[in-house]
Amino acid sequence: MPQYTAPLEDIQFILHDCLNITNHYENIGYQDAADESLVNAILEEAAKFAGEVLSPINYSGDQQGCKIENGVVVTPEGYVEAYQQYCEAEWSALAFPTQYGGQGLPHSLSVVTSEMNAAANASWSMYPGLTHGAISALLHHGTDELKQQYLPNLITGEWTGTMCLTESHCGSDLGLLKTRAIPQEDDSYAITGTKIFISAGEHNMSQNIIHLVLARLPDAPEGSAGISLFLVPKILDTNASSTLTDNQVTCSAIEHKMGINGSATCVINFENSKGFLLGQPNKGLACMFTMMNVARLATSVQGYAIAELSRQASLEYAKDRLQMRSLSGIKAPEKPADPIIVHPDVKRMLFTQKSLVEGSRGLAYYVASLVDKVETHHDSDGKFEQRLSLLTPICKAFMSEIGFESTNHAVQVLGGHGYISEWELEQQVRDSRIAMIYEGTNGIQALDLLGRKVLRDKGAALADWVSEVKTQALKSSETNSELARQLAHYCDEWLGLAQQIGQKASEDMDEVGAAAFDFLMYSGYLSVAHILLQQAEIVKTTNRSEAFKQAKQQTMTFYFARILPRVKTHKALILSGNDTLQCCEFEI
Amino acid sequence: MPQYTAPLEDIQFILHDCLNITNHYENIGYQDAADESLVNAILEEAAKFAGEVLSPINYSGDQQGCKIENGVVVTPEGYVEAYQQYCEAEWSALAFPTQYGGQGLPHSLSVVTSEMNAAANASWSMYPGLTHGAISALLHHGTDELKQQYLPNLITGEWTGTMCLTESHCGSDLGLLKTRAIPQEDDSYAITGTKIFISAGEHNMSQNIIHLVLARLPDAPEGSAGISLFLVPKILDTNASSTLTDNQVTCSAIEHKMGINGSATCVINFENSKGFLLGQPNKGLACMFTMMNVARLATSVQGYAIAELSRQASLEYAKDRLQMRSLSGIKAPEKPADPIIVHPDVKRMLFTQKSLVEGSRGLAYYVASLVDKVETHHDSDGKFEQRLSLLTPICKAFMSEIGFESTNHAVQVLGGHGYISEWELEQQVRDSRIAMIYEGTNGIQALDLLGRKVLRDKGAALADWVSEVKTQALKSSETNSELARQLAHYCDEWLGLAQQIGQKASEDMDEVGAAAFDFLMYSGYLSVAHILLQQAEIVKTTNRSEAFKQAKQQTMTFYFARILPRVKTHKALILSGNDTLQCCEFEI
Repeated sequence: MPQYTAPLEDIQFILHDCLNITNHYENIGYQDAADESLVNAILEEAAKFAGEVLSPINYSGDQQGCKIENGVVVTPEGYVEAYQQYCEAEWSALAFPTQYGGQGLPHSLSVVTSEMNAAANASWSMYPGLTHGAISALLHHGTDELKQQYLPNLITGEWTGTMCLTESHCGSDLGLLKTRAIPQEDDSYAITGTKIFISAGEHNMSQNIIHLVLARLPDAPEGSAGISLFLVPKILDTNASSTLTDNQVTCSAIEHKMGINGSATCVINFENSKGFLLGQPNKGLACMFTMMNVARLATSVQGYAIAELSRQASLEYAKDRLQMRSLSGIKAPEKPADPIIVHPDVKRMLFTQKSLVEGSRGLAYYVASLVDKVETHHDSDGKFEQRLSLLTPICKAFMSEIGFESTNHAVQVLGGHGYISEWELEQQVRDSRIAMIYEGTNGIQALDLLGRKVLRDKGAALADWVSEVKTQALKSSETNSELARQLAHYCDEWLGLAQQIGQKASEDMDEVGAAAFDFLMYSGYLSVAHILLQQAEIVKTTNRSEAFKQAKQQTMTFYFARILPRVKTHKALILSGNDTLQCCEFEI
Repeated sequence: MPQYTAPLEDIQFILHDCLNITNHYENIGYQDAADESLVNAILEEAAKFAGEVLSPINYSGDQQGCKIENGVVVTPEGYVEAYQQYCEAEWSALAFPTQYGGQGLPHSLSVVTSEMNAAANASWSMYPGLTHGAISALLHHGTDELKQQYLPNLITGEWTGTMCLTESHCGSDLGLLKTRAIPQEDDSYAITGTKIFISAGEHNMSQNIIHLVLARLPDAPEGSAGISLFLVPKILDTNASSTLTDNQVTCSAIEHKMGINGSATCVINFENSKGFLLGQPNKGLACMFTMMNVARLATSVQGYAIAELSRQASLEYAKDRLQMRSLSGIKAPEKPADPIIVHPDVKRMLFTQKSLVEGSRGLAYYVASLVDKVETHHDSDGKFEQRLSLLTPICKAFMSEIGFESTNHAVQVLGGHGYISEWELEQQVRDSRIAMIYEGTNGIQALDLLGRKVLRDKGAALADWVSEVKTQALKSSETNSELARQLAHYCDEWLGLAQQIGQKASEDMDEVGAAAFDFLMYSGYLSVAHILLQQAEIVKTTNRSEAFKQAKQQTMTFYFARILPRVKTHKALILSGNDTLQCCEFEI
C-alpha cells in the first residue's frame, strides 16, 4: 500500500459529461481527438502505465533517493526502465506537433495523463514534466533552426529538458540574478554562472539534457528588465547527427530534501557553456511567463494528484482497520470491533479529501481546456486568456494547499501507522509539500492574483468569472436551489471584497499583500464550490451508476456544509487590514 | 541554523507576572521553590543545557537516526553524552520526591525545562520524557517495595522507563490487546506478548529499562475492563544490589518514521518476562489514565516547543533574506533588495507562529499549575482536577495542530530553502507531526473533551471555565474593551454550541463525533484568546521593557484580528451535523 488506481470514472465524467471534451477538441481543430472511444482508450492505457509501472517504484524511489558520484546522478532503481517504457509508448510525444514527431493531441489530454503519473509517482513524473516546459519554450520562442535541431529528440524523450532560473541569492526575485551571457562571434553566447534547485538537472535517464537558462547580457539593464533566455545543451550536437561535444555543464551537488527524493534537485554550473538565445534579448522573463500558466497548472495538478493517492489508501485502511465500536451502536457485530470508517471524525477526514480532490480535478480540467483554446488561438477577443490568467494562480496555490492538507488527513486516518514510512503515507505528505513552494511560492501566487489579475484590470476578469459562477448556480435544480442561492450570495460578497481591497490599496499598497493570501483561498473555495455544484447537477442527466450520482450529490452537500464555511474566516482576514500585521519585533 | 535560544523573557513573564508562580509554590507546600531568583537560576541553567548541549545534536540526530544490530539500539552521536550530562546535573531528578533522591521541586517547573528540551531536540527529549511517565506510574500505583527498588535509579536517570500500550492490532482501542500475564508462585507474573511503537523501548543510554506494560490476566473480562498494569524490567535486579539477570525482553525492530528519527520507536517482545502488578488487577487502564493528564500536557508542550524553534529560525531568515522591494516603497535603499520581512504575507506567517506559540505557552503553564495543585492535593472540592481534565484534551490536540501549522509556516517563509534538509526546518515539520497522533490521536482527544469532559457533567466544567474567561475579559482596560466584549460574546456562543450538540446527541450519539473536532478547536482558539488578552493586560502593570509590552499588545491584537476569526468556520462545522458526513462510498 498504497497502490494507485486511476479514478477513471471520475476523470471520464468530468471530461465527457462536464466538459464535453470531444466536442471541444473538434472545435479547436483536433479532429483525431474528437472520438470518445479513442480518448477513453488513451486514458485506460495511461492508467495502466501509472498503476503498473510507476506506482510500484514510488516508495522504493523515496527510500533510495538519487545518488551523485563524480557529477553523475543515478536515479532510483526502475526509473530508467520506466522512462524507456514511457518513451517507447510515445507518452512523451502525446501533446506536441506532428511536425516534430509529436502525436498532435491536445494539451488538456496530457494534463490528465500527467495527473496519473504525478499521483502514482510524483518524483518520477518531474523528469518528463520539466521536458514538457522546455519544449513549450522552444516552440514559442525558438528559431526554426533551433526547433529542427532540438525538438525531435526532446519529443521522443531521447533528450530531456530543464528550467534554470533560481540562484542561491534569488528565487522569487529573479531580477537579482547574476549568471552572465557573453556574445560570441558565431552568434552563440558563452554562459557562466551557478543555478540551484534545478529539477532533473542531471540524471541517467537520457543521453542529453537541454537546459533553458536565464542569464544577463553584458549591457543588460539592471533588474528583471535585463534578463534573457538561453538554450544550453549539456552536450553540443554540433552537426545534428555527428560528434557530440561536452559543453561544460556540470552538476556539483544534489540537494537532500524533505521529499520528492527520487527527483534529482541539482546545483548546475555553467562555465563558458555555449548557449543560444531564445526570443528577444532582455525579454527572457516575458518568455518564461508565456510558459508559466502551463507550468503552474502542472503544479496544481500535482497538488491534488498526490492527495488522490493518499485518499485511496486512507479510505481502504479505514474500511479495514477495526478499532472501537460506533457510538451510535455496533455496526459490525461479527467482528471484534467496528471498522474505523464508522466514526464520524474519520468520515470527516475522508470526505474532506474526497471533496477537495474531486473539486480540484474538475477545476483543473476546465483550466486545461482554456489552455487548449489559448494555445490553438481560438480566443479571438482574449477572454479565454484573461480567464486562464485569473484562474492559474488560484489553482496553483489552492490545489497545493489542499493537496498538502489532504495528505495529512490521510496520515491522521492511519494514526500511528501513518507516521511509519513503510505505510507510505508520510511520503505523500513530504512529496506534496513542495508544490506550495516551487513555481512561485503561494505567497507570490496570491500577489499575482490580487495585484496583477484582479486589481490591475479593475476587477474585470474576476467579475466575468464570478458572473459565470453565479449565473450557473442560479440555473440549479430545485433540489440544490438553497445551496445555489448560498453560492450566489457569496459571489456578490466576492466582488465586494475585491472592491474594498482595491479602495484600501489606493492609499497603501501593502493592503494588497495583507489581503492577498486569504483572497486567493477565498476565491479557490468558491471556484471549487461552483465546480462541485455543477457536477452534482450534470450527473443527474447522465447514465452513470446510481452510486456515482449519489456520491456526487453527497460530496457537493458535504463541501457546502463543511468546507465552504472556511470562507467566513478568510473574509474576516481579508478585511482585517495591514495594520494588524505590525509588530515591533519585525522592524528592520 | 536553527540554533535554539530559550525565550526566557516570555517564560519568566508568564511564570512570575501572569501566574505569580513563587506564591503558588509556597501555597502548595514547595517552600524551596518559592524564591524567584532560584526559579530564574534554574531556568537559565536549563536554557543553557538545551541551547548548548541538545540543540547542536538535533539535526545530526535526525540525519543519523537510530540503528539496530542484534537487538542493540544505538542512538545518534552525542545522545549518550548529553544524557550523562543531563543526569549529572540532576535534571532527571528535578520534580520528584526527595524521599527517593529527587529534588522535590514542583511539576510545573519541570514542564518549562521539558519545553526547552523538546524545542532544542524533540527526539532526544523523548527518552527522559518516557522515564517521567514511568516514575509517575510507580509513585501512584507501586507498592512500597517496588518503589524502593525501582524509583531511585529511575530518578537519577541511571535507568530509564517506557510505556508499553499499543499492539499491532490495537492503538486507540486498548480493550483489544492480547499480551498475557500469568500469575507465578512468587507473586510475580510471566508476561508474554509483542508491543509496538514503544518510544525509548531499547537504547544505549542507560543500564536498565523499566517497562510499564498493559496485559491481560488469565481470567480477565473481555475489553478494557480486563487490562492490568505491570512493571517489567529489561534486566532483573533480583537483590537490589547484586546480580543482574536478563528478563527476556527483546527489541526485534525499530520503525522507520517520518520524523523524530533520533527517538528509537521499538517493537518489544516479552517472553515469559517477569513482571510485577501495579495497582489492582483489571484496573490497568484506570492506572494509565491517572498519568494521562501529565503525558498529554507533555505532548501539548512538545507541539508548541518545536514551533518555537521554527519560529526563531524563520524570523531570523526573514530579516536576512533580500528579495524584491516592498510594494509600499523601498525600505532598505542601501541593499539590492528589501529583506523579505517587509512583505505583509511574510509578516502574516511570522505573526501566526508567534501568537500561537506564546498563547499556547501561557495556557500550558496555567494547566501545569493545575497539575501541581491536583498532585499536591490542594484541591479540596475537586475543582482544579475538573478543570485540568477539561483543558488537557484541548491543549493536547490544539497545541499539536498549531505546532504543525507553525512549523509549516516557517518552511514557507524560507521558500525553496525550507524544503532543503540542511536548513533544518523541514525536520521540524516532520518532528512536530507525531504530536497530533500519539498520546491519543487528536480525534480521540476531541471525543474525550466533548463526550467525557463536557456532555457527561452537563457542561458544568465548561461553564466554569467559560465563566472565568468571560469575567476576566470584562475586567480588561479601556484600550482592549472592544476585543474583550468580542471574547465575552464568543463565551456565550461557546456554551450555546455545547448545549446544541448535547440536544442533538440525545437523539443520535454520532452527533458527538460529528462535532467533536471542531468543538475542540473552537475551544482552543477561545482559551488562547483569553490567555493573550490577559497577557496584554498584565504586561502593562509590570516593569518589562517598552518593546516587550508593545509586542504583547500587538500579538494579542493580531490574534484577535487574524486567528480568532477561525472560530467562525468551526462554529459552522459544529452545527453542520452528522447528516453531512454520509457518503455511499463509506458504507461497510
